[in-house]
Amino acid sequence: MQTIKPRTMSGFLELLPKEQKVFNDMKERIENVLRLHGLACLDTPVLELSSVLLAKAGGETEKQIFRLIKGDTDMTMRFDLTVPLAKYVSIYKNELTFPFRRYQIGKVYRGERPQKGRLREFYQCDADIIGDGELSIDADAEVISILSGIYKALNVDAEILVSNRKILFGVLKELNLSDKQSEILNLLDKYEKMGKEACFNEVQVLAGNKTSQIFKVFEIKTLQELKECNLQDENFKEGVKELEEVFELLNVMNVKNVKLDLNIIRGLDYYTGTVFEGRLKEFPSISVGGGGRYENLTGYFSSSKMPGVGFGMGLTRLFVLLKELNKLDFSSENYSRVALIPLGDTKNYCFTLASTLRDKGISCEVLYEKSFKSRMNMANKTGVPNIIVVGEDEVQSGIFGVKNMKTGETVKVTADKIEEVL
Amino acid sequence: MQTIKPRTMSGFLELLPKEQKVFNDMKERIENVLRLHGLACLDTPVLELSSVLLAKAGGETEKQIFRLIKGDTDMTMRFDLTVPLAKYVSIYKNELTFPFRRYQIGKVYRGERPQKGRLREFYQCDADIIGDGELSIDADAEVISILSGIYKALNVDAEILVSNRKILFGVLKELNLSDKQSEILNLLDKYEKMGKEACFNEVQVLAGNKTSQIFKVFEIKTLQELKECNLQDENFKEGVKELEEVFELLNVMNVKNVKLDLNIIRGLDYYTGTVFEGRLKEFPSISVGGGGRYENLTGYFSSSKMPGVGFGMGLTRLFVLLKELNKLDFSSENYSRVALIPLGDTKNYCFTLASTLRDKGISCEVLYEKSFKSRMNMANKTGVPNIIVVGEDEVQSGIFGVKNMKTGETVKVTADKIEEVL
Repeated sequence: MQTIKPRTMSGFLELLPKEQKVFNDMKERIENVLRLHGLACLDTPVLELSSVLLAKAGGETEKQIFRLIKGDTDMTMRFDLTVPLAKYVSIYKNELTFPFRRYQIGKVYRGERPQKGRLREFYQCDADIIGDGELSIDADAEVISILSGIYKALNVDAEILVSNRKILFGVLKELNLSDKQSEILNLLDKYEKMGKEACFNEVQVLAGNKTSQIFKVFEIKTLQELKECNLQDENFKEGVKELEEVFELLNVMNVKNVKLDLNIIRGLDYYTGTVFEGRLKEFPSISVGGGGRYENLTGYFSSSKMPGVGFGMGLTRLFVLLKELNKLDFSSENYSRVALIPLGDTKNYCFTLASTLRDKGISCEVLYEKSFKSRMNMANKTGVPNIIVVGEDEVQSGIFGVKNMKTGETVKVTADKIEEVL
Repeated sequence: MQTIKPRTMSGFLELLPKEQKVFNDMKERIENVLRLHGLACLDTPVLELSSVLLAKAGGETEKQIFRLIKGDTDMTMRFDLTVPLAKYVSIYKNELTFPFRRYQIGKVYRGERPQKGRLREFYQCDADIIGDGELSIDADAEVISILSGIYKALNVDAEILVSNRKILFGVLKELNLSDKQSEILNLLDKYEKMGKEACFNEVQVLAGNKTSQIFKVFEIKTLQELKECNLQDENFKEGVKELEEVFELLNVMNVKNVKLDLNIIRGLDYYTGTVFEGRLKEFPSISVGGGGRYENLTGYFSSSKMPGVGFGMGLTRLFVLLKELNKLDFSSENYSRVALIPLGDTKNYCFTLASTLRDKGISCEVLYEKSFKSRMNMANKTGVPNIIVVGEDEVQSGIFGVKNMKTGETVKVTADKIEEVL
């Protein structure tokens, strides 16, 4: 028979079992934090109508999607979890309780050109709190504290940089530059990437001799300095007040790894207040999660106003980063805690013993390969942390040697005590 | 602004938060059983090269897939988890340990016409044990015991019907009908759907007056009767021997809900030995999971022979069935175990208390909506099982009333004892 060369497309992560286990552990730790905060879990379809997913998309998004037409249905694979959330909230509004607190972890798809480091399928994790008509500033502090809790659960050293877009809105208004707000913010968003000088020069094209006054904002490092600016613009004052409230609440929640940083803008046009970004200490220029406050989640789908605040993080990318940092050694175990290895005619006994152990919640497997030698080989290769060789002596005496494969040490116990020494 | 009507395509399940929680619990219970048996978890891409996914597909499959071409890449959304497994094992063969024991739970896609009850996106759960060159019959018993363990974990009353294809192969060979084996088995597979008479008549077209001898097999109800047939065909004898071994091992593993049923054929051509199917007591004609032994998983991708045995079950469909049976009330809870409701100026205190509770692993949320009344409304609507109203008295005295929302009962405790009464 002619065979076909099996391969996985580039940009689509596929892990070996041990790495997959580590990825799953990372995902579970994150999910646990989200659940501890009482967020509901959503699971929307991967494939949606193009008319829905692309409701607010421009030509740029169009190029970066996986779109397919079947019969007369035009469909697209989701490229984020925000548009599906907007759809979901619009459809089920009357059945949900607001503020609606949800998270979703799922694969999203980007039609990027295959290129090293560019992922075309990756896990996205989103957490949002959505209000019906209004939403307290408390929610802003809460989502930041959740993100902080995730970093803590992953044992990573990360800092969350927080700003509020109203500050820059106010500054630009005071300088009579509100009409160029979008363009200027887009340039300022690239500050870190472009370098200060290049960024300054490009903003100058739009703002002329007011540019240095804009850039002065970036020198402000504390809330106190910010207040001392004494700008009378309402936007500015509201931004300062919101930042004060958010930092006060974060302090109350005992969230310490947060810092004011007015450089944080977040490219997306739809953020209107609080914005924040998490940075690993070891990769300070790369964002590992971020988000902010938006005024209207569902504008493209309905006329009711639904403000929200939330964050997103790319889990696949985070996994790759944390692997580089060796932060992922928290679980190097196989799924089985113990392997039972029959020696002689004890296979049936092993199967019964395995059932008993599983009933106690202990993962285990019986190695029933042909020869005793290949059973031992298998145990060595899979990395199972404990083994029990079950010979006829053991069955008769009822005493089993549990061998820890790392230390090489063997402890002898009766069958009902096995779980105590694993 | 013009708005777009938000909708979810038919055939794509999307659940409200409470139902989603129940679905997730079901999925977790299943996953827990798979892990207790030491199976590795895989997570292959949803999108694969069409040349890989369709390696063994005919025209029929072609119609039922979601296929898309982007640039010069021809891709298809996975329609099962078996072809991805064959690809995976072929690519990573040298890095895996055999027998390779894996499970995968993930969404799969079928391009069915939108129709009531027909799902186009659903969760599939597969578990398989793959050998390199050979695989012990023990593995057959093991996968059946895993499926049985899943039914037990879900508290459903299910029976697993077991057969072995070699029995019918042998019978057909004895009757000199081996050349029509595939066609006849395909007809016999529809026995239940067609009814005995219609099936008999169609088989008769192929098998003539030998038909009644084929149908005699279906009257056999026990291993003893099967042995008494005394057919000398090697296939037949092997089939009987394998069935004996499998049932003996299942008995050893204390798996009781299994039964010989020679009607079980399983449509797919590639099964070569043991075949089995799970049936809910309440829906005896619907299969809720099934599988069998196959001789060569990777034939389309490589020349090495890799026999395996495994099962698949459609989780989304199972969820719908169990919901109908009211078997899913094992979790009707919100994600939060307790909601903290500030009364007066105690919001900050509540946030601190919430952090303390979460550090102890208790999911909770602070309800910080505008008015106390709307906070109470929210608690009633979300179905949170416990609430604590935190007024200034409570903060001063350090004694809190934990109210169970189901019973209406309130227990008074100090802050450090809250977890004990939840």
